[in-house]
Amino acid sequence: MTGFTLGQLAEVLDAKLDGDATRVVTGVASLDSAAATDISYLTDPRYASAARASRAGAFVAPVGTQGLPGPVLHCQSPQRALIELLTLFFPPPAPAVGVAQGAVVGEGASIDATASIGPLAVVEAGARIAARAQVHALAYVGRGVEIGEDSVIHPHVVLREGVRIGRRVIVHAGAVLGADGFGFMPDGGRFRKIPQVGGVIVEDDVELGANTTVDRATLGATVIRRGAKIDNLVHIAHNVEIGADTVIAAQSGIAGSSRLGHHVILGGQVGIGDHVTIGDGAMLGSKTGTISDLAGQAKYGGTYARPLMQWQRIWVAEAELPTMATRLKKLERRLAELEARLAGGEGA
Amino acid sequence: MTGFTLGQLAEVLDAKLDGDATRVVTGVASLDSAAATDISYLTDPRYASAARASRAGAFVAPVGTQGLPGPVLHCQSPQRALIELLTLFFPPPAPAVGVAQGAVVGEGASIDATASIGPLAVVEAGARIAARAQVHALAYVGRGVEIGEDSVIHPHVVLREGVRIGRRVIVHAGAVLGADGFGFMPDGGRFRKIPQVGGVIVEDDVELGANTTVDRATLGATVIRRGAKIDNLVHIAHNVEIGADTVIAAQSGIAGSSRLGHHVILGGQVGIGDHVTIGDGAMLGSKTGTISDLAGQAKYGGTYARPLMQWQRIWVAEAELPTMATRLKKLERRLAELEARLAGGEGA
Amino acid sequence: MTGFTLGQLAEVLDAKLDGDATRVVTGVASLDSAAATDISYLTDPRYASAARASRAGAFVAPVGTQGLPGPVLHCQSPQRALIELLTLFFPPPAPAVGVAQGAVVGEGASIDATASIGPLAVVEAGARIAARAQVHALAYVGRGVEIGEDSVIHPHVVLREGVRIGRRVIVHAGAVLGADGFGFMPDGGRFRKIPQVGGVIVEDDVELGANTTVDRATLGATVIRRGAKIDNLVHIAHNVEIGADTVIAAQSGIAGSSRLGHHVILGGQVGIGDHVTIGDGAMLGSKTGTISDLAGQAKYGGTYARPLMQWQRIWVAEAELPTMATRLKKLERRLAELEARLAGGEGA
Repeated sequence: MTGFTLGQLAEVLDAKLDGDATRVVTGVASLDSAAATDISYLTDPRYASAARASRAGAFVAPVGTQGLPGPVLHCQSPQRALIELLTLFFPPPAPAVGVAQGAVVGEGASIDATASIGPLAVVEAGARIAARAQVHALAYVGRGVEIGEDSVIHPHVVLREGVRIGRRVIVHAGAVLGADGFGFMPDGGRFRKIPQVGGVIVEDDVELGANTTVDRATLGATVIRRGAKIDNLVHIAHNVEIGADTVIAAQSGIAGSSRLGHHVILGGQVGIGDHVTIGDGAMLGSKTGTISDLAGQAKYGGTYARPLMQWQRIWVAEAELPTMATRLKKLERRLAELEARLAGGEGA
Repeated sequence: MTGFTLGQLAEVLDAKLDGDATRVVTGVASLDSAAATDISYLTDPRYASAARASRAGAFVAPVGTQGLPGPVLHCQSPQRALIELLTLFFPPPAPAVGVAQGAVVGEGASIDATASIGPLAVVEAGARIAARAQVHALAYVGRGVEIGEDSVIHPHVVLREGVRIGRRVIVHAGAVLGADGFGFMPDGGRFRKIPQVGGVIVEDDVELGANTTVDRATLGATVIRRGAKIDNLVHIAHNVEIGADTVIAAQSGIAGSSRLGHHVILGGQVGIGDHVTIGDGAMLGSKTGTISDLAGQAKYGGTYARPLMQWQRIWVAEAELPTMATRLKKLERRLAELEARLAGGEGA
Repeated sequence: MTGFTLGQLAEVLDAKLDGDATRVVTGVASLDSAAATDISYLTDPRYASAARASRAGAFVAPVGTQGLPGPVLHCQSPQRALIELLTLFFPPPAPAVGVAQGAVVGEGASIDATASIGPLAVVEAGARIAARAQVHALAYVGRGVEIGEDSVIHPHVVLREGVRIGRRVIVHAGAVLGADGFGFMPDGGRFRKIPQVGGVIVEDDVELGANTTVDRATLGATVIRRGAKIDNLVHIAHNVEIGADTVIAAQSGIAGSSRLGHHVILGGQVGIGDHVTIGDGAMLGSKTGTISDLAGQAKYGGTYARPLMQWQRIWVAEAELPTMATRLKKLERRLAELEARLAGGEGA
């Protein structure tokens, strides 16, 4: 573990130091686990009391923070400072440039001299791998696949034939891009496969989680737009389009031909039916399910999805539902008695 | 991209051509993306207006379709014609027959001379791979596994020891067949593993999606019957039986020892508890959950599952639930006042 | 298949034999599929009638069981006896010790002489693999990974750099440990990646299912405590802690920084939000979702989670909900009429 003086860190982070510039820290740690040799961080005011109780040797904190038990690097954006600290203290290992032992490269594959192909990776014929891209051990790069500059393909990823990956894309281990879409035609009680001959296009700066699947289109392309961030075990079906800067948490699934706008947020285990459109900036809470279009710039919950506030009010009201049935029955009886008595009274 | 005259296509598709038989098309595309050199298709009357607005150079359409802006190939089944078109324009690449570079084949494995084993695939001892079967790069075929004629095992598939795959089966990338069932015995606050020594049997014409898991049975076999189609990221537990021509959408899960009949349809993210029987032809909407048996030839929704129509009526009624509680309280008060007044009146 | 006399089995299982000690059985099978040459088992009194109808040649059954149609081995714990029977009749194959053909081992990796590394596995520099551990074909063991004694890493597992695996751990095929946590910082409408530099610690006797993902921590470690059993396709996010002897069924997901106590049970497709604490011994039924802490030693259902009994009562009451709205409206009208009449009567 390398060490840095607080003076050095103040310079790198463009921070104002309140404390001893010669003090050395050798690690980064969270508020509750930091030791005197670590620098820690206060990125959210909710954790102010944890910060005051921390044994960290120094802190990154917002401008104006008072009362921390050690030197403070005051930053405009402590979260950005944290990202810089993590990169500084834990520099990513430089990949071995070139084609590693045992990797198999097909005829006519073009691999940039600065790219790295890990041990026992397979790169099929006609694939093109750009500068500084990394294809890790045991990954599979199919025929004619394109991988852009600085992209990272982790171990055991499968990129089937023709998949196109942009620049600075990260595909985590076990993800499968370009498997056949799920398309069949009923034919006399059986199902005939509809050939899936389209592609998958992943634009720049996308991140795809471990064991996530993105199916190829029937025709045309399944598209993940620039900057989308997709977590583990997510299912993206054929001909789906995911908008720019959209975030999808783990285990969500998007059925065929649906379109998510930009800056959509899906919580975990969300389900979107086929041919559905989700508007820009929509937010679907975890486990939400919809088979209808949802307008943008609004929050939703439940299955089928409703406006989040309405769904939460229903959830609260449901607690009374079991007794409501009984109370309703009692009211009906009492009212009937009253009506009968009044009818009797009138008749008398 | 090869080209075909409309006359050639009419013959291959057994279609009646209304237009110039010598016109050449060089691609297939959807109605909205087709160019003048493409043939497009109208497989569903809902898209008739899209068809009329399409710039496609020719159309496949049902017998009797009128008003399309170009030559039309009238077909009995336009969807079947589309399948034939896609196969014609996008012929699947012929796999390299034989054992590729770097593949490892164990002792006594039997590989048909017409089968193809991709680069860095592993075929363990005693496995049997039939005619024209394809085991793609980096796939794992365990001891004693059997793979039938014309089946395709995509990259990174794992077939653990003894798994049996029928003919014309497609297993997509990253699927795992034959991992241990999830069986434990409580023993003094801890769990002892119950050995999982059964098998997995996949019958003919089954398709299994990317990263789907089918566990081996404790004893006996987990069985996927002929023609079942299973999407990505589905979980099939030990000793489950999936009936013939049953369709399971992505991310659904079937717990241990449950049985699905034939022609069952599960939407996405459905959950079936253990030891449950689902009758033939039952249809469970996306996100349905059940821990009880469900009769066949009916539709279901919700968790726990109910008849679909009932569940949808409940969903509609729930919108009123938050105000119903208030209205009920008000009614109770008004009725009590009335009763008190009448009691007072009587007492007077 | 080896055979055993009932006398031999009685001794091994420490059972009291009621029947012919020289009789030979050559297999183990379930009650309904057992033949006369098989031994079967009655581990749950619910199956007593199936046992009486079974054609098995012998039975393992609880002490005191009467009326079975064959010799009986009476055991204190028939389930434990079954485990022993399965191990006896289906001994796990002895792995080939040493480094197999085509495996790639990085510099400075330490592999115990009794460990086994399968064909085309990759073990990166600095990894340490202890006695009798098995790394199967095509598995990936990253830099500095530690694998404890007797652990089994199945084909296609990915253990990214620095992951630590205890003793007697089983990681099923396709599982990914140590992929980056899903952490981003909003930055002017885009998302910047927060480096994920923490680790994953899996303690002794844990089992992780096929295609399950356990992300590395941002800082610190994601921890799976001793004896936890986790099924297929489960998602464990960064910085989560799973308590000892906790059981998680398939397709459940735990979001970042949440903590499950010991002896927690999650059914299938459960979702736990981030920064949530689930108390020791809590039981969440399948498809339960929570974004709030849940107390231990209690059962829960629904989304958002409620006490299981309350959730089930709501589910029952919901069946009346569609008619309740109508009945409520009718009551309101009748009561208003009554009030009007009485007001009229008073006015008169």
